Amino acid sequence: MERGGVVWLTGLPSSGKSTLAGHLARELARRGRRVELLDGDEVRRKLTRPLGFSREDRDENVRRVAYVAGLLARHGVLVVVAMISPYRAVRAEARAEIGAFLEVHVACGTDECIRRDVKGLYRRALAGEIANFTGVSDPYEPPEQPDLVVQTDRESEAESLGKLLGLLEQRGYVEGGAGVAWTT
Amino acid sequence: MERGGVVWLTGLPSSGKSTLAGHLARELARRGRRVELLDGDEVRRKLTRPLGFSREDRDENVRRVAYVAGLLARHGVLVVVAMISPYRAVRAEARAEIGAFLEVHVACGTDECIRRDVKGLYRRALAGEIANFTGVSDPYEPPEQPDLVVQTDRESEAESLGKLLGLLEQRGYVEGGAGVAWTT
Repeated sequence: MERGGVVWLTGLPSSGKSTLAGHLARELARRGRRVELLDGDEVRRKLTRPLGFSREDRDENVRRVAYVAGLLARHGVLVVVAMISPYRAVRAEARAEIGAFLEVHVACGTDECIRRDVKGLYRRALAGEIANFTGVSDPYEPPEQPDLVVQTDRESEAESLGKLLGLLEQRGYVEGGAGVAWTT
Repeated sequence: MERGGVVWLTGLPSSGKSTLAGHLARELARRGRRVELLDGDEVRRKLTRPLGFSREDRDENVRRVAYVAGLLARHGVLVVVAMISPYRAVRAEARAEIGAFLEVHVACGTDECIRRDVKGLYRRALAGEIANFTGVSDPYEPPEQPDLVVQTDRESEAESLGKLLGLLEQRGYVEGGAGVAWTT
């Protein structure tokens, strides 16, 4: 059986988690790897609808996703998770539960995240219309010992993807040297 | 890749779903099949803690388990689900979403379920201490076109297990003729 594991992308809203996760999942599938993408928004719709954005609810959300990701990883799936998951402690819980866990900080300066504002939510949060918005009215605790940092305000998407694949090769989750078929 | 699918055991409390699901999962694992057991109680703890036992909450619970089971099945896992899942409509939704879905009615007369009362909950429900208890104060809608019925108040566990394995062989999920290593 192939070796399963979880690549956990954490970072501010609009830092580029979903974009990178999508690129990574497509590239792994192209290489014939069993892969599943769990994106924060989809997961909220499917698993955690009544939960909000308090710390308790965010943590419970992370725990559920970790449970599902762990189930899949146990069966040889490489799971790519894209979630703000702002709190260190519950990410550490997820690592402890899953074991084969790679924590990737998708780092991007707040100014650049606000400039991108993919969903128009920073604008509303800065106008005081949204409470508990990570990076504005809620804290983000960056990983202290991430397995990898990608810096999306300074690197191209291709560079960040290359670093992610390099990490997976180095840790024995995928075979190296296959090159990247860059599709957008 | 092996063919994934979901064996969904539905029935009254104490009808024998968890017992049978455990036997089936162990037997499939013994045969080298990739298998995962999703039991109602475990799942409530991991995925659906704030949900209660109203129809809406039960249905949401079923939808979440169906989502997770479907994810696993997509990756070649044979998933055994044991859940009361009393309402027909949401079981039909699960079937439609998952596709490779075998609905098994774990049938057992209410009298016998009450006699077994594995968790002591019938006693409390009959005393009026628990609201929304399936089979007492809440309805159970048996499947109209199940893929299989096992009748646990008339069959031995070995018989019921044999029927389940027969179904899986017939539908091409496992290879036949391996015999059953009966362990309790």
